[in-house]
Amino acid sequence: MVGGGQLARMTAAAAVGLGVTFRVLSESESESAALVTHDVTVGSHLSLSDVSAFAAECDVITFDHEHVPAPILAELESSGILVRPGGAALRYTQDKLAMREKLNALGIPCPRFAPVSSVADVMDFVGGSWPDVASAWPVVLKAVSGGYDGKGVWVCESTGEVEDVIAHGIPLLAEEFVPFRRELAALVARSPSGQGAAYPVVQTVQVDGICREVIAPAPGLSPDLAVQAEAVALRIAAELGVTGLLAVELFETRYGGLLVNELAMRPHNSGHWTIEGARTSQFEQHLRAVLDLPLGSCTPPAGSFTVMANLLGGTDPDIFDRYIHVMAADPAVKVHFYGKEVRAGRKVGHVTIVGGPGDDVSEVRDRARRAASYLRWGTEDGD
Amino acid sequence: MVGGGQLARMTAAAAVGLGVTFRVLSESESESAALVTHDVTVGSHLSLSDVSAFAAECDVITFDHEHVPAPILAELESSGILVRPGGAALRYTQDKLAMREKLNALGIPCPRFAPVSSVADVMDFVGGSWPDVASAWPVVLKAVSGGYDGKGVWVCESTGEVEDVIAHGIPLLAEEFVPFRRELAALVARSPSGQGAAYPVVQTVQVDGICREVIAPAPGLSPDLAVQAEAVALRIAAELGVTGLLAVELFETRYGGLLVNELAMRPHNSGHWTIEGARTSQFEQHLRAVLDLPLGSCTPPAGSFTVMANLLGGTDPDIFDRYIHVMAADPAVKVHFYGKEVRAGRKVGHVTIVGGPGDDVSEVRDRARRAASYLRWGTEDGD
Repeated sequence: MVGGGQLARMTAAAAVGLGVTFRVLSESESESAALVTHDVTVGSHLSLSDVSAFAAECDVITFDHEHVPAPILAELESSGILVRPGGAALRYTQDKLAMREKLNALGIPCPRFAPVSSVADVMDFVGGSWPDVASAWPVVLKAVSGGYDGKGVWVCESTGEVEDVIAHGIPLLAEEFVPFRRELAALVARSPSGQGAAYPVVQTVQVDGICREVIAPAPGLSPDLAVQAEAVALRIAAELGVTGLLAVELFETRYGGLLVNELAMRPHNSGHWTIEGARTSQFEQHLRAVLDLPLGSCTPPAGSFTVMANLLGGTDPDIFDRYIHVMAADPAVKVHFYGKEVRAGRKVGHVTIVGGPGDDVSEVRDRARRAASYLRWGTEDGD
Repeated sequence: MVGGGQLARMTAAAAVGLGVTFRVLSESESESAALVTHDVTVGSHLSLSDVSAFAAECDVITFDHEHVPAPILAELESSGILVRPGGAALRYTQDKLAMREKLNALGIPCPRFAPVSSVADVMDFVGGSWPDVASAWPVVLKAVSGGYDGKGVWVCESTGEVEDVIAHGIPLLAEEFVPFRRELAALVARSPSGQGAAYPVVQTVQVDGICREVIAPAPGLSPDLAVQAEAVALRIAAELGVTGLLAVELFETRYGGLLVNELAMRPHNSGHWTIEGARTSQFEQHLRAVLDLPLGSCTPPAGSFTVMANLLGGTDPDIFDRYIHVMAADPAVKVHFYGKEVRAGRKVGHVTIVGGPGDDVSEVRDRARRAASYLRWGTEDGD
């Protein structure tokens, strides 16, 4: 796996049971995955020689992020290395304009969009250049490549704010601001043999562009919409030739429809709940898919549901002092630490609680939030 | 953790989420745990200097087996190293006679026993030296120390067989042969602060002294016996000063009572089901206990049960060819490989299936057995 973040760290743990040899290419010895993986290669995902040397030791390579440059992917593939997902699929995670155009061509509902390179372009988009209906303020500007966790996304309320973003001088996309009811995510796996598997659709809660909470399955989601979301994710995986996991972030609009927001082709924050909540974790599933092994069951135990809350860094880095209190307060909370230095706002772990048939979703959400808040701030109602 | 077997391997995976730095002292680089652990020290658990040097790098040391000699444990403890469980507790896993005498003194029901060093001693035991009731053939002879997985245990039917065992010239214990209804195991954790936690009591199925199957919780076990078994395990843990896990192997006799068979003070084969089947796995629980962190919930999800079948080596070492078929045949089977070379009869992994409220225990047992059999023999009805 190229990349040494928490996704690789949790994949390393999944590889233990699977009995496969897992290696990681990490930027340093102190990255999240490098701290727990037996076979660590230190190198840069931006260096062809580093990635090639690493890949030569592997049967298959895969990724914990989408930042390996396309020319490196192409070079690896042309030299016969199994790259999963391949460059042709990863392109759509590296270029949001290409992704939007592709989904549009497939007839998959997305927010209205247009490439923009000037304030005039944006004004034109806001003023209603889109064929079917006028857009309006606010308008969303997105970096065509490189954004994550809310970075590279700007919600602009005025011409002045648009000017500030245009001034960055990077390739941009304008999108309509979708007044969604809530955000959902559909997670599927697809193997090189073409086998597909879909996890239950989840609800995600974002704050300032960062995922804070996931509820699996999405409470009260109509069976029709759940099937639609799974079907659209499986279709995208097949049409784009994804091998491994595909996470599709969706808006459930106020009018009851679904729009595709973002794609990721790797284990995804919206799937961390599967470690405890589903028969096969997303990390094991990703390995099974990229190794072309038969996929595992995505089903949660009967009657169960799972709440995951992300743990962000607070101002006090000594998280272990607080950890003990969270463990004592709620023995059913499962805490996952990523081994990352605590910095304000940084994702440093997550907590998971699995609820059973007799449990109340909002009560379990409260417990998960209290645990995450205590770990961050030392108080249960910090955020 | 001293020892590089599969228990250390699975503990390494549990340490990832917990965010603690896990090191292993392994006899070679190719042992089960050494293959997946970031911090591996190669050395012998029989060497004071190896163990001391390893312990100097750790805050706490614990074990994946009970074979570290008592003088080494004493030396570590006297030099201020935190050894959990300590030598005073581990003694009872290293000396079965001391264990029997201690449990007897505590009034905890065990099979009738006597130390024996000659054929005459055994004849005396068989003839009824025990105060309350005569013993009889068959008689069980056990090595006082060093046995495991049926090794060091002989069920003798005649004087001739007794003579053969006595001829080994090792310290022995005679025990009555208990005509049990079935075997059970009670798994508990105890922390240095004295907190205790008990997993549901399980049924274990042994073949030739090797655990083949575990059903959790034990089907049809009366609530009274379940409470008795948990209570006796918690009491033994407290009386013997165990820190970490304690597994108590029990006979459920034909007359409905419980007798303690064996003790282990570490993660135990009868607890592998907890990885998928309980909120806190035994491996995480052992780490929490030896680190004196609050213990996690031992509860399975509501209405669930779990079947674990051990995977023994067959005659064909190329297990991965068969693995694919098992994965395809039953996507809900979770296979755990230990990374060990396949040898006939050797424990090389295990499979787990979690059943829900609508599932039938015997059907899930069949599925687990079929998977284990196919992995071993390439046929679903091999054993």
